[in-house]
Amino acid sequence: MNYAQFYKNALLTDVIPFWEKHSLDTEFGGYFTCLGQEGKVYDTDKFVWLQARQVWLFSMLYRTVEQRESWLNIATSGAEFLKAHAMDSEGNFYFSLTRDGTPLVQPYNIFSDCFAAMAFAQYSKASGEGSYATLAKNTYKNILQRKDNPKGKYEKGTGNRNLKNFALPMILSNLVLELEDVLVEAEIRQTIDFSVHEVMEVFLQKESGLIYENVLPNGNVHDSFEGRLINPGHGLEAMWFMIDIGIRNNDQKLIKRATNTMLRILDYGWDKEHGGILYFMDAKGHPPQQLEHDQKLWWVHLEALVALAKAYEQYPDENIKQWYHKVHDYAWSHFPDPEHGEWYGYLNREGKPHLTLKGGKWKGCFHVPRALFQCWKTFERIEQL
Amino acid sequence: MNYAQFYKNALLTDVIPFWEKHSLDTEFGGYFTCLGQEGKVYDTDKFVWLQARQVWLFSMLYRTVEQRESWLNIATSGAEFLKAHAMDSEGNFYFSLTRDGTPLVQPYNIFSDCFAAMAFAQYSKASGEGSYATLAKNTYKNILQRKDNPKGKYEKGTGNRNLKNFALPMILSNLVLELEDVLVEAEIRQTIDFSVHEVMEVFLQKESGLIYENVLPNGNVHDSFEGRLINPGHGLEAMWFMIDIGIRNNDQKLIKRATNTMLRILDYGWDKEHGGILYFMDAKGHPPQQLEHDQKLWWVHLEALVALAKAYEQYPDENIKQWYHKVHDYAWSHFPDPEHGEWYGYLNREGKPHLTLKGGKWKGCFHVPRALFQCWKTFERIEQL
Repeated sequence: MNYAQFYKNALLTDVIPFWEKHSLDTEFGGYFTCLGQEGKVYDTDKFVWLQARQVWLFSMLYRTVEQRESWLNIATSGAEFLKAHAMDSEGNFYFSLTRDGTPLVQPYNIFSDCFAAMAFAQYSKASGEGSYATLAKNTYKNILQRKDNPKGKYEKGTGNRNLKNFALPMILSNLVLELEDVLVEAEIRQTIDFSVHEVMEVFLQKESGLIYENVLPNGNVHDSFEGRLINPGHGLEAMWFMIDIGIRNNDQKLIKRATNTMLRILDYGWDKEHGGILYFMDAKGHPPQQLEHDQKLWWVHLEALVALAKAYEQYPDENIKQWYHKVHDYAWSHFPDPEHGEWYGYLNREGKPHLTLKGGKWKGCFHVPRALFQCWKTFERIEQL
Repeated sequence: MNYAQFYKNALLTDVIPFWEKHSLDTEFGGYFTCLGQEGKVYDTDKFVWLQARQVWLFSMLYRTVEQRESWLNIATSGAEFLKAHAMDSEGNFYFSLTRDGTPLVQPYNIFSDCFAAMAFAQYSKASGEGSYATLAKNTYKNILQRKDNPKGKYEKGTGNRNLKNFALPMILSNLVLELEDVLVEAEIRQTIDFSVHEVMEVFLQKESGLIYENVLPNGNVHDSFEGRLINPGHGLEAMWFMIDIGIRNNDQKLIKRATNTMLRILDYGWDKEHGGILYFMDAKGHPPQQLEHDQKLWWVHLEALVALAKAYEQYPDENIKQWYHKVHDYAWSHFPDPEHGEWYGYLNREGKPHLTLKGGKWKGCFHVPRALFQCWKTFERIEQL
């Protein structure tokens, strides 16, 4: 099978046209992301994560696939909407807005800001508009300022059990590479060193070989619901961020460790009964709090494919190849909707869609096309060898 | 079938012994609620909702079933633990504590307070200790003071879409009857009038006959994820609270409307394909945000049984009887664990347990025994006729 061609086709003849056709808000700018099975808009609220991610995606396509004017226009629509509506007076990004840009949910964490910074940096490169580079840089500085207390007054913890969360160092390890043209090398280096250390030395536990979602400040595990939580998809996604950093820094040791870790996570997170990768697990095998723990999510499988493709490019060995085939076969036989296009997001444990939406509060134009693009380009290099 | 005997047996020979055997923390006081399939403690954190509810339950058993010293001792252990550890300096109740009572999660809403007030009032009556009646009254006053801004600084909404939530008036309609001996009639009357009006005139929508989880301040529905949300279990539970108020106030019209509403909710929320009552639904049939929307939860089915039993006692008609049998048969053939006792909490849509826990963060010693008790007593009256 020619994977490069397969992934390219899926991206350019199915997924991107789906979002071009259904998601554009030509009246207020930005995007509809709540799209039913056939692409029909069922809710018009705008979630800042997803607005920013779609700006990023179309800017990236314009820069790296083809300079289609329509792609840049789509990115512009979202970038201007975000700039006009998504920031509070202190430069923090709201979580959600109404269709016309009225703020709905406060900036109660810094993930909206992370995706906005990614979006502005990429859009600045696509459009050539320097003001967006400045915006990206300011947003990034604000993220760093808030990173030790990301929830501010919305933090519900008393401080008596100080667990730190994996999501932030993980996102920073990807964001910083997105900001290569915006930051100076010393700044990049500092955040890379911080996030690689956190991901590989603090959250990755030597004994189990797994990444924990929440650990004590000293990196030890904690026997509580949060402390036992494993999110295989997060771990897998982080491993391809590590490989990207390893390639940038020519750090073969990091690439090797990331590869071994992803194989360990896959082995642990694979559902031996029904196939697919589980969403949440408890490291001690206790019942997780998340009622959706045994569902199969689109992004988890896509990030696994990207991680495996990148690992295989570095180490073309049989075990990685087998895993790639296994995840590829599961994903492509369960998630895509051949009739109406794009992918289902949420399968039950047995692999049947239990929500037929193509987009919602958390699923937008991001994981599917980003992964298809990454797999296409990675296999293009592999298959040319 | 003699339902009274059946429910009494299940309560007194299965469910109560299960919690007596597995949940008591004899070292620090209070209760373990995270119990695995066989009753083994898998986590020791203490969730204030569940601590308070177990105090309430054992106090109630002691008062109404039998004055067993051991039941009062169990209630005392939890009441003293709550009094010593669960309040902040302003009398607000934390959401969770460590095993030894160290606060973990701040008082970010007032539901912990509602269950604490219920617990203290019932425990005061069981133990005769007046200080707990005072504590119940003070907690109740504090709830009323906070009720228009229950989340305080933890509120993430911007105020640009002011939806009000069903849970508070619903809980108040039950809490106020629990506080009969603590409050004066005028206070009781005021809260009854408020909550009945909110439940039956504001959240119950005339056109659909359904109760919405969130409505605009004027009671209109709002076309958004929150505004379209239907939680059939909440509606059913609220309807038996309404029947209790109807009986107290000799308000036959309220009882009739509550009965009709529960039948409408059951008809709407029943899963025609797999049986059982769905957890969350979207009033327009759009995809709900809750990934667990199609699961079957223990408390939903138990509250339906209580509501139907109480309605049947008032109106012994065939339709209510048929519904009772239908829900009874589904519940008793899916939720109980004949091997290890008690009920599973979480079934997947097809009716298979997807978490085998008997207790956790949200499931404690409350809905199962309370409903068994209510059904026992209601059928005792019905079957004596």
